[in-house]
Amino acid sequence: MNIRLVKLYDMYAALLSDRQREIMDLYYNEDESLAEIAENTGITRQGVRDWIKKTEAQLEGFEAALKLVDRSERLLYQLQTAKKALEKGNVRLASSAITTAEGLLP
Amino acid sequence: MNIRLVKLYDMYAALLSDRQREIMDLYYNEDESLAEIAENTGITRQGVRDWIKKTEAQLEGFEAALKLVDRSERLLYQLQTAKKALEKGNVRLASSAITTAEGLLP
Repeated sequence: MNIRLVKLYDMYAALLSDRQREIMDLYYNEDESLAEIAENTGITRQGVRDWIKKTEAQLEGFEAALKLVDRSERLLYQLQTAKKALEKGNVRLASSAITTAEGLLP
Repeated sequence: MNIRLVKLYDMYAALLSDRQREIMDLYYNEDESLAEIAENTGITRQGVRDWIKKTEAQLEGFEAALKLVDRSERLLYQLQTAKKALEKGNVRLASSAITTAEGLLP
């Protein structure tokens, strides 16, 4: 289980087919083994492995194209920086973090 | 020309094929007519029209799945609200807008 791939899946699941989501949910969210998924879906173990690899490559392709996970994390960092700055009364830093955040909008 | 579709195209062009982008660029960015695109690409006028309709449906499908244009506009509004609030010294409103922005992150 790869945290990056789970993040990509959370971000881009809506772009996958129902069948892809069904299998990836078993793998990522239900934490089922390839053998269990094979048994539950009627696909061979190798077929499940290929399916997951193909889907993961597709998720990486979505991120290469849109960079949503990357931008979202950098946006969150700037927003948190702005909030902490406001708590400390540093309006100038907060304002600069908000401007940086604007530049990161997709 | 539909402003919403141009925004969707700007957001999701990277998810389209090279051929789709080629035709949509002529249509959206070069503002060519269907007849001109047909002449420049060797496709029939009706073929160009079908191609554009199909691509626009796909763009709407991406937005229905990811809502990036919608979320990006709402995020921008919150960031602008926060900045204006800071300019007026309203730290509480700025902080609340930043919290709202965090909730809009994809």
